[in-house]
Amino acid sequence: MKRVYLDHIADTPVRPEVVEAMLPFLREKFGNAQSLHSEGQEAAAALEEAREKVAALIGAKASEIYFTSSGSEANNFALKGMALARKDKARHLVISAIEHQSVLHSAKSLEKLGFETTLIPVDRFGLVDPQEVKKALRPDTALVSIMLANSEVGTIQPIKEMAAFCREKGVPMHTDAVAAAGNIPVDVNDLGVDALSLVGHQFYGPKGAGALYLRKGTRILPLIDGGIQEGGRRAGTEDVAAIVGLGKAAEIAQKEMASWAQALKPLRDRLLQELPKIIPHVIATGHPEHRLPYHASFCVEFIEGESMLLHLDMQGFATSSGSACTSRALKASHVLLAMGLDHALAQGSIVLSLIDGITSEDIDRLLEVFPTIVERLRKMSPLYTQFLEGRKP
Amino acid sequence: MKRVYLDHIADTPVRPEVVEAMLPFLREKFGNAQSLHSEGQEAAAALEEAREKVAALIGAKASEIYFTSSGSEANNFALKGMALARKDKARHLVISAIEHQSVLHSAKSLEKLGFETTLIPVDRFGLVDPQEVKKALRPDTALVSIMLANSEVGTIQPIKEMAAFCREKGVPMHTDAVAAAGNIPVDVNDLGVDALSLVGHQFYGPKGAGALYLRKGTRILPLIDGGIQEGGRRAGTEDVAAIVGLGKAAEIAQKEMASWAQALKPLRDRLLQELPKIIPHVIATGHPEHRLPYHASFCVEFIEGESMLLHLDMQGFATSSGSACTSRALKASHVLLAMGLDHALAQGSIVLSLIDGITSEDIDRLLEVFPTIVERLRKMSPLYTQFLEGRKP
Repeated sequence: MKRVYLDHIADTPVRPEVVEAMLPFLREKFGNAQSLHSEGQEAAAALEEAREKVAALIGAKASEIYFTSSGSEANNFALKGMALARKDKARHLVISAIEHQSVLHSAKSLEKLGFETTLIPVDRFGLVDPQEVKKALRPDTALVSIMLANSEVGTIQPIKEMAAFCREKGVPMHTDAVAAAGNIPVDVNDLGVDALSLVGHQFYGPKGAGALYLRKGTRILPLIDGGIQEGGRRAGTEDVAAIVGLGKAAEIAQKEMASWAQALKPLRDRLLQELPKIIPHVIATGHPEHRLPYHASFCVEFIEGESMLLHLDMQGFATSSGSACTSRALKASHVLLAMGLDHALAQGSIVLSLIDGITSEDIDRLLEVFPTIVERLRKMSPLYTQFLEGRKP
Repeated sequence: MKRVYLDHIADTPVRPEVVEAMLPFLREKFGNAQSLHSEGQEAAAALEEAREKVAALIGAKASEIYFTSSGSEANNFALKGMALARKDKARHLVISAIEHQSVLHSAKSLEKLGFETTLIPVDRFGLVDPQEVKKALRPDTALVSIMLANSEVGTIQPIKEMAAFCREKGVPMHTDAVAAAGNIPVDVNDLGVDALSLVGHQFYGPKGAGALYLRKGTRILPLIDGGIQEGGRRAGTEDVAAIVGLGKAAEIAQKEMASWAQALKPLRDRLLQELPKIIPHVIATGHPEHRLPYHASFCVEFIEGESMLLHLDMQGFATSSGSACTSRALKASHVLLAMGLDHALAQGSIVLSLIDGITSEDIDRLLEVFPTIVERLRKMSPLYTQFLEGRKP
């Protein structure tokens, strides 16, 4: 059976050209980029070339790019590094209720060190109201962090408006662009943010390499202290191969993301429109328009997301019920709850996130298979039985 | 000209079998290890297999291994995570004066959060006296961190004795084994430590994957907060390919490290014995016996280490003047200064660290080339002219 991979939000396959670009750095070009000899110089040059490419993807300068090992590390670096650099004067954080766990938990760790957090709510589409951010700003606000796009419901936030309010008050703004960068146009100057997280494995690069963009002049303390790597702001021997892969993926994404979006959007729209029609008690989640081009998400009433995805897996479809970073926690998503969905409905979450190469036939087959799976699972669902018997679950 | 790579302490080349083991995870096996579908399960199984292999290398249980992206990250995780987990009761740190920058600077960051550090001195061989550690322990000591082997001078510390003193007092002990693990036998139970850092690129694995061993029951807070990866103790999508490479490298090292040492020790001994004989004013640094089998280090009087290594590079030899993590800082090594060497002598530091495959002929050629380089550089050295004229430099 042909496997159809619909879990972009967890990971994308690595483009063959990216693997090819990495291979020399796993084989003959093995130098440490900090070494002064020829082997080291060669590695250092490769790092700087990758830095240029990542910078170009988001309209930044190369000197504003700091490599990390993951999107979560970039988010921790931004939140903790920027907050702790300001802690003598400012101990207030502003984040949204639907941030990734790496932002939410970084804020919690900072609270243990004396910081206070304001959690901005979202509407039923998962949108943050920029006016709410404006209202939350205080003279002692150390930073604002609102994600550019949410990986569980696909909603894209009006970051530009929020960043303008932050700039007015002189508060630095970070955005977690892990689900967005490399997939939709992202320009740090157009957005007006001071810091931005991205990761390569969300746009056909390898795992193990992400980056934090940090606008020149933005204060930050290292998350990983030690050596002189990354301008003394992030210690640790650089993973040259993965970073070269990230650079190559950024270069490809810059050229191809428009055509990826053009190909995936109609397929995504079919899912968003047809699934709620052919399966009863299914609602699409997230914003109908301001959403990632590769992203369709739903709640299927009376069923648990995990059982749906295991049955879809057996039929050849790789899907998820939300963020891979919480997949095994089996709790209702904090994102869906913040959007006002009730617990039972939130349990029936499913995310169909498309990758380059998915065909119309793949979607045809999914639309054929999915209703049967839902029907079968509902037959075993006590909640559904109760519903049919006319009792509120 | 044949390149001869003598910079093991910066990086080792990746073994071809390690690259082969990694490749499927850069190509078809691209799943996120936290995803519940088949692609994810396959990645998760590969991670656990690598965890078993890394555990076996150091006599630990697989459940005690936490993957990181580098040795520096493992050291930051240990220092900050263990210290902050105890901060309500214990705010005193004990480390040695010759620790890696990632340990020294982590301690400095902790000082900004209210911790106090006792720096244990070393003797002229770079050895820490276990009695000094014992004396430094206080009721409010949060942790002790002393490295197993120093990458700049090769000295191996009597960790077992220190760990016994720590255990007596109930103080957790961490050791940075980055330069040692995979190169000499390391057993966490024999050593009696509670935490240990290692990294794959020091034993023919890829960059991008290291690990922190943490004895069951040892309290720690995450350095990277967020998802459920690594038992909730280290967030971020796991770099499956690099981790698989680390596992394979650990498996190979366990089998082959004895033969590596057997081959390299006589070559190292030739360097240690002959270089000071054939070049005037050269002293070997570090301990003559308790030292890494691949490691020879020297101070060459009246010359700067950097110019030596650039001239050696032109003659085909990749060497270093100390830690790659501070290579471009051009400051005298804190390790050599702590050993009592004066500033001028410390500037002439050179480390010749051998890798598997180095031959007796390579060493012959080095012993032929090196004296000429030193002679040429000294001719240009005002310090040497002063010395020859009988004045103290």
